[in-house]
Amino acid sequence: MPLHRLQIGRLLISRPVSLPRPHPVSLFQQSRRSFYGYINDSKMAPQLEPFFKQVDQLSDSFIDRLRKAVAIPSVSAQDESRPDVFRMGQFLASELEALGAHVEQRPLGKQPGKEHLELPPVIVARYGNDPAKRTILVYGHYDVQPALKEDGWATEPFELTIDDKGRMYGRGSTDDKGPVLGWLNVIEAHKKAGLELPVNLLCCFEGMEEYGSEGLDDFIQAEAQKFFKDADAVCISDNYWLGTEKPCLTYGLRGCNYYSISVSGPAQDLHSGVFGGSAHEPMTDLVTVLSKLVDSQGNILIPGIMDLVEPLTEEEKSLYPGISYSMDNLHESLGSETGIHATKERTLMARWRYPSLSIHGIEGAFSAPGAKTVIPAKVIGKFSIRTVPNMESPDVNKLVFDYIKAEFAKLNSKNTLDVWLQHDGKWWVASPKHWNFSAASKAVTQVFGVEPDMTREGGSIPVTLTFEQATGKNVLLLPMGSSTDAAHSINEKLDKRNYIEGTKLLGAYLHYVAEEPMNA
Amino acid sequence: MPLHRLQIGRLLISRPVSLPRPHPVSLFQQSRRSFYGYINDSKMAPQLEPFFKQVDQLSDSFIDRLRKAVAIPSVSAQDESRPDVFRMGQFLASELEALGAHVEQRPLGKQPGKEHLELPPVIVARYGNDPAKRTILVYGHYDVQPALKEDGWATEPFELTIDDKGRMYGRGSTDDKGPVLGWLNVIEAHKKAGLELPVNLLCCFEGMEEYGSEGLDDFIQAEAQKFFKDADAVCISDNYWLGTEKPCLTYGLRGCNYYSISVSGPAQDLHSGVFGGSAHEPMTDLVTVLSKLVDSQGNILIPGIMDLVEPLTEEEKSLYPGISYSMDNLHESLGSETGIHATKERTLMARWRYPSLSIHGIEGAFSAPGAKTVIPAKVIGKFSIRTVPNMESPDVNKLVFDYIKAEFAKLNSKNTLDVWLQHDGKWWVASPKHWNFSAASKAVTQVFGVEPDMTREGGSIPVTLTFEQATGKNVLLLPMGSSTDAAHSINEKLDKRNYIEGTKLLGAYLHYVAEEPMNA
Repeated sequence: MPLHRLQIGRLLISRPVSLPRPHPVSLFQQSRRSFYGYINDSKMAPQLEPFFKQVDQLSDSFIDRLRKAVAIPSVSAQDESRPDVFRMGQFLASELEALGAHVEQRPLGKQPGKEHLELPPVIVARYGNDPAKRTILVYGHYDVQPALKEDGWATEPFELTIDDKGRMYGRGSTDDKGPVLGWLNVIEAHKKAGLELPVNLLCCFEGMEEYGSEGLDDFIQAEAQKFFKDADAVCISDNYWLGTEKPCLTYGLRGCNYYSISVSGPAQDLHSGVFGGSAHEPMTDLVTVLSKLVDSQGNILIPGIMDLVEPLTEEEKSLYPGISYSMDNLHESLGSETGIHATKERTLMARWRYPSLSIHGIEGAFSAPGAKTVIPAKVIGKFSIRTVPNMESPDVNKLVFDYIKAEFAKLNSKNTLDVWLQHDGKWWVASPKHWNFSAASKAVTQVFGVEPDMTREGGSIPVTLTFEQATGKNVLLLPMGSSTDAAHSINEKLDKRNYIEGTKLLGAYLHYVAEEPMNA
Repeated sequence: MPLHRLQIGRLLISRPVSLPRPHPVSLFQQSRRSFYGYINDSKMAPQLEPFFKQVDQLSDSFIDRLRKAVAIPSVSAQDESRPDVFRMGQFLASELEALGAHVEQRPLGKQPGKEHLELPPVIVARYGNDPAKRTILVYGHYDVQPALKEDGWATEPFELTIDDKGRMYGRGSTDDKGPVLGWLNVIEAHKKAGLELPVNLLCCFEGMEEYGSEGLDDFIQAEAQKFFKDADAVCISDNYWLGTEKPCLTYGLRGCNYYSISVSGPAQDLHSGVFGGSAHEPMTDLVTVLSKLVDSQGNILIPGIMDLVEPLTEEEKSLYPGISYSMDNLHESLGSETGIHATKERTLMARWRYPSLSIHGIEGAFSAPGAKTVIPAKVIGKFSIRTVPNMESPDVNKLVFDYIKAEFAKLNSKNTLDVWLQHDGKWWVASPKHWNFSAASKAVTQVFGVEPDMTREGGSIPVTLTFEQATGKNVLLLPMGSSTDAAHSINEKLDKRNYIEGTKLLGAYLHYVAEEPMNA
């Protein structure tokens, strides 16, 4: 009996006892067929043992590769870190070349609005050029979010620090250096084990993902029929498992519209003793306007936004109870019990299929510890809306701008307000019935002994949609990290298990994808 | 005819033409008598020419003294700058000793709540010990507000930079290093001109004024009958002229209660894509609560606060039209026309005799340029209330705490809110009829050729009240800088004229105060 049939049995055993359990395998196949249209058939799995063994043997050197990458503070949002972003691109290019890939560093020109800055290059690579094989295009990013020790990190953010539970802490460990290096590890393990890669691999690694992927869309469009023209499917590893134990495949993402509101008044900061009470304070106006955007229960207060949201159907509603997720998972990843909703179903819907609005912070006000009696002259509030079907960015922008200007007008302030879109990325929902997904599902079952949940994601990876539109091919999101990895936060980490077994998963996926029938 | 009589005439000529102008001198004396009870009599002014001449001759070296002081970034609010605060204290002590003063550096112990930090010493000094002379206690501070070039300074904040209009830019130039060094300049000019100082001078220079004057109150109380026991009056130079041309003497100050509100929820910052919509966001709650404190027109929304304010009498109301101030002055110092009130009278009342509430900023949120899609885990809002008679700090605190907790409770949030008083300093109103004030008035007239306005101030100098209570003596505020000096802001400056003529003013004040009858 093939291994994965046993795994299906194992999965079902771990399900809640309240589910009806006539004949486990047929029930499961039936329920999966109804939505995704494919099942794990009895076709022989690829022989992956030598590859897996090699990955285990190389695990220390793979971790060392990640350590080197984390040590480069490639923060794309900070002007002064730009040389480090370039250094990180060079590191990746050199590693890929050393593995025998054909590598090109493609410049993207000056950064719009910051013409003194050169955009970091897209690192594109090709490994294998066999027309008899499928070609898989993989994407990742080598830039990271800002991080300062004083933000509250327990360790130096740019030094990979491994604790006794195998948690590897460091900025970029899980987002997205670990997954990017996973592809390099796959190539290396195949080479060292004397195995041929079962597909041609195309890589597209960018350096501006954490700052709106400046310049990438045009690049992908331009290369869709050039460097990327052979691609049969796309795989992106830049998101996370829903929990900590069970892998998932992701077929939907929310979009993100990121806004700034500036309020300015006096020509320079003022002393609050001297001018408090006699001048309109920009901070007062900004705080008032920001307070009109969203309430404590997460309800967006901008009229018209919720009208754009695709209504929930009974069919879609029926999918949520089956997802392996619990309120405990939420509380664990929050580190608190401050979730808004009472059930996992409503929580997942809030994350995946409803919009949300978060206020990120204020630029220009006093933000240090201690006390400063300043009236800031100009303050810029930052907030973003996570978008879902069928919210179109221009419609959202109009509602946002009109509402904010109307709310500000109500204040009768002599200050000046401006509001603008800093960047946007559209939501994306793909077909999980494609062979790209079924192959990945088999790979997960093979490596982790459990079938993946089919999920959507609350986060935004705008490039997903670009790849789909530019190549016309199916795009799969195949996450490596887990829900507790704290991407974008302090103490970001990647578990050693996720990195090493995740490397096996990426490799196994390439093997299954090579064998999967055209429309399984 | 003594010089100052002529000056009174000059002053009236510059007044608005709409005022009734029967006989200028008698009108002015009459109106001043009714409130302050003293007039500039015809007594011969002290012979100040040799002192003034010496100040002019030494002006370059006085500016150089200020340059050295500004170069020491003695920021009391930043832990890492503490050694520089000590260095600045040592600089002052050394300069005073070189001038022949008896100097002591008095330690204040550990900083409460930050026991790894030593409080900077109070520099006390005595110059002259003649029982036949009056003894004047002068106060200033040698610490400064934080300043970073990237906050928007046109010049390096800790390098004194003089432009072609004689504006001397640098953090601390006007607040309060210039005035402190003014007293040193007075001693030096007397010595070099071979003149005897007409009074005994006691100095009290502290290093924590910009961070709540930690430890100073107890010190002053303890020394009132020791080091400061001979003091006959107190003079503080740590505020500003109302405009840019006409000096003022100040007899009232607002107090300041500085609050922090923290809202916390998740154990660490969260990715807004993953958790937006499913977790209560501390930033949403904080912004909502902050928006309930004050409106755009400066009205404090906390119930009960305005009930504590001393009602405006007709007598007090009648004082405001006579003050030399205009809406243009306000607009000039704001650098904009974003004043709240339509008239100078209402503007001055808002600044001097009504409370105000300013929101200074938020600690823990995203405050840098660019975009970061973070849900901050814990945010701390900072705001302060400027207090006036008869607002007692415990009453204000209770109203603030109760209201904020009640507003937060309305949100039904699972986050946690805390609110506390970071520091407070009481308002102060003194008697401007004292000889201390009449002497200063004569000095202003002598140096600037114009009688000073008698003003109150919107800012807070809590130590004023402490000196009054501890010594039982009259306290005078004798400002050196002008309204456009941008204390606490970027591009803080002190005009060369204000520094050099201000040095003459401090010296002339000491001469007049030595001669003024006990109750002029």
